[in-house]
Amino acid sequence: MGLDQPSAKPHETLAETLASDLTAVNALIRERMASRHAPRIPEVTAHLVEAGGKRLRPMLTLAAAALCGYQGRHHIHLAATVEFIHTATLLHDDVVDESEQRRGRPTANLLWDNQSSVLVGDYLFARSFQLMVETGNLRVLDILANASATIAEGEVLQLSAAQSLATDEDIYLQIIRGKTAALFSAATEVGGVIAGAPEEQVKALFEFGDKLGLAFQIVDDLLDYRGIPGVTGKNIGDDFRERKMTLPVIKAVAMADDEERAFWRRTIELGDQRPGDLDEALAILNRHDALDATREAANSYAAHARRSLQVLAPHPIRDMLEDLTDYVVERVN
Amino acid sequence: MGLDQPSAKPHETLAETLASDLTAVNALIRERMASRHAPRIPEVTAHLVEAGGKRLRPMLTLAAAALCGYQGRHHIHLAATVEFIHTATLLHDDVVDESEQRRGRPTANLLWDNQSSVLVGDYLFARSFQLMVETGNLRVLDILANASATIAEGEVLQLSAAQSLATDEDIYLQIIRGKTAALFSAATEVGGVIAGAPEEQVKALFEFGDKLGLAFQIVDDLLDYRGIPGVTGKNIGDDFRERKMTLPVIKAVAMADDEERAFWRRTIELGDQRPGDLDEALAILNRHDALDATREAANSYAAHARRSLQVLAPHPIRDMLEDLTDYVVERVN
Repeated sequence: MGLDQPSAKPHETLAETLASDLTAVNALIRERMASRHAPRIPEVTAHLVEAGGKRLRPMLTLAAAALCGYQGRHHIHLAATVEFIHTATLLHDDVVDESEQRRGRPTANLLWDNQSSVLVGDYLFARSFQLMVETGNLRVLDILANASATIAEGEVLQLSAAQSLATDEDIYLQIIRGKTAALFSAATEVGGVIAGAPEEQVKALFEFGDKLGLAFQIVDDLLDYRGIPGVTGKNIGDDFRERKMTLPVIKAVAMADDEERAFWRRTIELGDQRPGDLDEALAILNRHDALDATREAANSYAAHARRSLQVLAPHPIRDMLEDLTDYVVERVN
Repeated sequence: MGLDQPSAKPHETLAETLASDLTAVNALIRERMASRHAPRIPEVTAHLVEAGGKRLRPMLTLAAAALCGYQGRHHIHLAATVEFIHTATLLHDDVVDESEQRRGRPTANLLWDNQSSVLVGDYLFARSFQLMVETGNLRVLDILANASATIAEGEVLQLSAAQSLATDEDIYLQIIRGKTAALFSAATEVGGVIAGAPEEQVKALFEFGDKLGLAFQIVDDLLDYRGIPGVTGKNIGDDFRERKMTLPVIKAVAMADDEERAFWRRTIELGDQRPGDLDEALAILNRHDALDATREAANSYAAHARRSLQVLAPHPIRDMLEDLTDYVVERVN
């Protein structure tokens, strides 16, 4: 798809602009996911890494490095690092969630076993760690170590916060930082750091990644109640059926009267769901404008992400990141 | 127990000599396993970290640093790092093995759930990573990144090597390096590196940890066929019943005639075990002196470990590491 075709999606335009870097990243990923000793490893990882993910996170690193005029080769290592961490997280998530599908294909834990998913995830973490050490940049290591801790902490927090009406917006933010924003912001920040960009720009890149990640995850959670099946690839009400405390429900619970509170307690906390409950949930969400308020939250983070980019010098890639930000929230606007 | 009491075990003597460092390590471990946001994390880790492990791996780091005359404080971070990696590995192992007991107590996956074990393990890996970054020493990071990859690769390899008569001594060595020796050797090596020891000493410390770890694991595998129940804490034949390809069986399979090969194929590969099979297995192992040959392998690695220590200057701690090496193989001699 050409850059001049207005129908290209922002992440496709970005992929085209960063094509030679992305090719190098993919080559490095293939090289490093190999294991001389354990053939099970490339089997499992290939299933995920080659499964047609959009490479959004590595592109954020490549874009940030390009925006800061980086001329070296270590952004390739960092982009591969970020994708390995992401893939490792997916492998472990699928075990934790007992998922059977990811990106429309059977999950690794279904094709092989939970054991392979846990251990190959650990292997990818270790490989990502080797890749980042190769950059020889301690600040980059610090950023990625902190992101790893935030990711794991958010996942554990989600375990205890799930199905509890006490989960508030603060806890939700910590969870989605761990789930999505921490790796987005680490991806953009290390791109600036490896380029030796001024502190103000590094901070702006962090803010951009963080707020884009928050907007991205909030939109994802909103689409679960407002999506168009077939277009968004999600079924309306999956999160409700799985009793997840996402932002729409958290907002509605905060405004609930006694009767509504009893409804949420029964359906989410106790898991006693009956025919018609999803419609009732949607009616309550709409009564309190919880879906609109959730959309506003996503829009507000997206606006913050866009503003952060203004600290960086004008550049075609900066425009693409702006377009990408618009695109993320466009699905619910 | 006093140093002058001959009944003190070598790791107890070492613990007493390193007591103030070990206190600092324990304080750091407790501080870093806390999580402001997710109270499940310290619950799970406390269960393991406080469960009375011998702190063997962190002691190796402290001992190595002391032997090389280190005067700083980063050996404390590295010792805690090593213990966190070990604990994370145990959490994931118990999920993989579906274990129900560890150190005589119910495992975390039984007390909580597999999800918590996977995610808290990830959290400890991330925390270990933060701790080592704080040392600011890139070589240390490189060593620990490589060790992490060897550990994960060994675990995956074990999945595919289990129950296969094609598993030979080379594969077995890779597996036990991943399972035990890689973290032992990283623990000792980083102690020397953080102290800025000469290359020859760093290499000797690596060799000591590697060979001690190999001897340690081979002894463990031998005790499964030759242990004294109640004394070693293992039941005779557990590995046989779990169809594990450990060194005694590998040696016996290599020397098997057709009839014996059929026996191993039925009991290990096909898992069709009948009453009397363990006795038959022991008879075959003894017929080929496979247990003696396994003991000789452990003794040979222990001797190699002891020789490596001679590169280091005489020091009471060096003597203790020698005693520790003797003690490791003493259980089967």
